[in-house]
Amino acid sequence: MSISTRLTQLFGIERPILLAAMDKLADARLAEAVSAAGGLGILGGGYGDADWLRQEAAKLATARERTGLKFGIGFITWSMAKQPELLDLALEAKPDAVWLSFGDPAPHAERAKAAGAKVICQVQSVAMAEEALAKGADVIVAQGAEAGGHGASRGTFALVPAVVDAVGDKAVVVAAGGVGDGRGLAAAMMLGAEGVVLGSRFYASIEAAANEEAKRRIVNASGDDTIRSLIFDISRNNIWPAPFTGRVLMNEHARKWMDRELELTRHMAEEGPRYAAAREAGDFDVAAVIAGEAISMIHDVLPAGEIVRNITEEAEALLARGQGWRL
Amino acid sequence: MSISTRLTQLFGIERPILLAAMDKLADARLAEAVSAAGGLGILGGGYGDADWLRQEAAKLATARERTGLKFGIGFITWSMAKQPELLDLALEAKPDAVWLSFGDPAPHAERAKAAGAKVICQVQSVAMAEEALAKGADVIVAQGAEAGGHGASRGTFALVPAVVDAVGDKAVVVAAGGVGDGRGLAAAMMLGAEGVVLGSRFYASIEAAANEEAKRRIVNASGDDTIRSLIFDISRNNIWPAPFTGRVLMNEHARKWMDRELELTRHMAEEGPRYAAAREAGDFDVAAVIAGEAISMIHDVLPAGEIVRNITEEAEALLARGQGWRL
Repeated sequence: MSISTRLTQLFGIERPILLAAMDKLADARLAEAVSAAGGLGILGGGYGDADWLRQEAAKLATARERTGLKFGIGFITWSMAKQPELLDLALEAKPDAVWLSFGDPAPHAERAKAAGAKVICQVQSVAMAEEALAKGADVIVAQGAEAGGHGASRGTFALVPAVVDAVGDKAVVVAAGGVGDGRGLAAAMMLGAEGVVLGSRFYASIEAAANEEAKRRIVNASGDDTIRSLIFDISRNNIWPAPFTGRVLMNEHARKWMDRELELTRHMAEEGPRYAAAREAGDFDVAAVIAGEAISMIHDVLPAGEIVRNITEEAEALLARGQGWRL
Repeated sequence: MSISTRLTQLFGIERPILLAAMDKLADARLAEAVSAAGGLGILGGGYGDADWLRQEAAKLATARERTGLKFGIGFITWSMAKQPELLDLALEAKPDAVWLSFGDPAPHAERAKAAGAKVICQVQSVAMAEEALAKGADVIVAQGAEAGGHGASRGTFALVPAVVDAVGDKAVVVAAGGVGDGRGLAAAMMLGAEGVVLGSRFYASIEAAANEEAKRRIVNASGDDTIRSLIFDISRNNIWPAPFTGRVLMNEHARKWMDRELELTRHMAEEGPRYAAAREAGDFDVAAVIAGEAISMIHDVLPAGEIVRNITEEAEALLARGQGWRL
């Protein structure tokens, strides 16, 4: 028994769960584990390291030969637009989907579709959803501000139904941001979504290519302990375009520069190298742990496949209980 | 047929829908309409105008004689704490509930309980939920940042299940922020809430004591058009304590001062009177229309009773459909 939606039907997958295209952290190993459990694994192409992308995409293509699994490859759109040859490289692996987030999906969407991939566009507002639809999105991920990492200001709860209403039957809508367990999947479906994207939950998985101390901090923290800010982008000299900010765990470095972002830019001669060294050393009192508000519901590091199965089963039980509330 | 939850059982009401205690806008007429339709109407006591409060509470007490309806009285806690005699005044009307939001619920919670009222505490984080529980809350409203008016930063989607987990069976959890229709009620229940609070949806009701042009703007705008900021509090000389900010419709005044809040404080000799005049005149290019992100789902001004019934029926249909997603 499993949940069938337009998302599972579109990709021929068993469970309506997507792996967020987390930069490098969502590598072939994690993507394969998600796909093998019936979800859709998406490589985190991030800022575009061609060698890494070629290698990880090849691993997934090889796994497909063996098992027939489905997979996608994801990009930070505005960054990939500077080296569009990365998309060609991705398309060589014949992914089932190309994920474009944060920036104008055209003309990448057209090229992806011409190569036979479905186009997943992640958006942060109704206006962006309308733009993604006009530019050929097959799947629109409505990402709320609860999400870890980069995002914008609208919350998942009201954004999802608004995007569903704007998009209608012309694309499949999926919810992202704040989903930590099966309650989130069931709730997203009530809001009109056809599935969910999980980031933080898969960060705290055995397979995630992440620092173990970072995983430990996610498991021990509450959503109350996260902030959305510019501090970490400034600190690592990687300033994103508006309206995007990044959600991370509050830490000593963030406390020091909170509401003093402009001042931080004047101290980068010291703070830049200090921050880079902390990232290198895994010192998370300074370096950021990317995490969303869903971490309130995340208490353990689990195999990714188990996460996919647990969430689906919990949602199934809730959907079945639906009748029980009626008198 | 209707939805039965711990919230409906606690108050002996028919539908798990609460009217947000919107300052003066939620007057006796609106509260009575919500309660008459089976929800729980809550007077918006706001900053505390004793004459208004006495008059509106008396109207509800009189209506109760006639119809047996239930009602609550709501306060902005930090403001009421400056004139705690307002709580005595409220308790004289023997409300079924006292709603405390934004500030330390003690010692008001105890006094309310001693007078036989249930205590509803609205919170914006897990930490605040734990505090409210310790101070005697019977109902905890988990209010996400999507909400119109004052609130904080955590989103509804991940806040609700986190508060449910923190509170367990010790209080009844209700979701607020981003609920515009029956999808929101059904989703909130999947997240573990026992009901929802509606603000913006009841603002756009026939009975709401609000300017008709403000209602028209809500009906025509999208959640994309709202912002959470300090601009309007500064402009009306009513600065709230941290961590609260206010969500309103973006307008000309907000565009002028966006990201220039500190500068605005230095122009209050002109901007203060200009803003006050605009509020008086109903000029909403300057004065704020308080609105949440749920306005994406609000397209008409309806009788409040019809809103209560529509939302419940839509949620019932979605909960019944739950089974349909399973294969």
